[in-house]
Amino acid sequence: MNQAYPSRLLENAVNEFSKLPGIGRKTALRLVLYLLRQDHEMVTGFAESLIKLKNEVNYCRVCHNISDTAVCAICSNQNRVQHTVCVVENIKDVLVIENTLQFNGLYHVLGGIISPVDGIGPGNLEIDSLITRISAEGITEVILALSATMEGDATNFYIFRKLSGFKDLKTTVIARGVSIGDELEYADEITLGRSIVNRTLFSESFKLN
Amino acid sequence: MNQAYPSRLLENAVNEFSKLPGIGRKTALRLVLYLLRQDHEMVTGFAESLIKLKNEVNYCRVCHNISDTAVCAICSNQNRVQHTVCVVENIKDVLVIENTLQFNGLYHVLGGIISPVDGIGPGNLEIDSLITRISAEGITEVILALSATMEGDATNFYIFRKLSGFKDLKTTVIARGVSIGDELEYADEITLGRSIVNRTLFSESFKLN
Repeated sequence: MNQAYPSRLLENAVNEFSKLPGIGRKTALRLVLYLLRQDHEMVTGFAESLIKLKNEVNYCRVCHNISDTAVCAICSNQNRVQHTVCVVENIKDVLVIENTLQFNGLYHVLGGIISPVDGIGPGNLEIDSLITRISAEGITEVILALSATMEGDATNFYIFRKLSGFKDLKTTVIARGVSIGDELEYADEITLGRSIVNRTLFSESFKLN
Repeated sequence: MNQAYPSRLLENAVNEFSKLPGIGRKTALRLVLYLLRQDHEMVTGFAESLIKLKNEVNYCRVCHNISDTAVCAICSNQNRVQHTVCVVENIKDVLVIENTLQFNGLYHVLGGIISPVDGIGPGNLEIDSLITRISAEGITEVILALSATMEGDATNFYIFRKLSGFKDLKTTVIARGVSIGDELEYADEITLGRSIVNRTLFSESFKLN
């Protein structure tokens, strides 16, 4: 739809909306027209929540997760295991892992993964602060929970090498294998191969934290 | 994802986004985190374009289409056929019909269709102003271009009856039939039936404006 919009204001709003990932011009128009039908309070509330978020956002100074306080609720929760840190790419991954209810340690949000194509090197990520935390907080296990992609693997490997100097530190990586619910014949060979190599004792396999 | 968000600001923004049609909480979170990664200007531009649209929006006083001027570009274009009015449900339908390049008359935006379930009666729509236009502007044809739904048909019928008093006024309805590209066996019986009853001369069928 490369068309002349009947109003500049409408066109601007559609342009702004279609900058969002996965939102094309048709969807953008649909959303803008929906907002146009709502009352003033709703539209203002919508717009202001975004400006407020952007202006007042704060990141935990320990784990770099988004937080309303200087230190986030997870880092300041003394009931959590203080010596295990799970390294993730972004804020969303913290939410996803929290939802599993299977992890009770702390997090460290890198803020991305190493990706030369996108111009993201180790220096752009919170890797140095991870090293500092390990010395300062007496961390005994670092769990690498990055995406199972080439960039994720490269970042895993980079961090693993950086951590190799610490003795008494265990570096683990989340299991890769056949997804629960998947039929074997549809699993790709690399995943299936990994799941055979990293097989676990059956009696251990259904244990949950 | 019915979860505790690590930040109230984040939660508010996700709540606001998930009010939009077709945007669930997962998509809302993805969009909000995307905006969070953008610079201040982008987020402010996004939010302000919506507030500006809502505050400054104007509707053409003739056809009720969205417009930056008191009378819209279509209504004030003297090259368009002034005596034919196409009645549509909303602003988007004007865009869609304009895109076909097959119509060179004027529009009349009803602002909805009669839908007792949603509490929308004829009084909520721009039907009276349509009647006024027909008397005032010497309209000779009204094209009903509403959705091919029960509500659309009811609205068509209501308008048709209201217009029956005007002599020398032709009331037409857009053709219903098998969509271009569709195979016959997949067309529903009512559509196929209509397309047989309303068959056109082959020599006329591929004429375009």
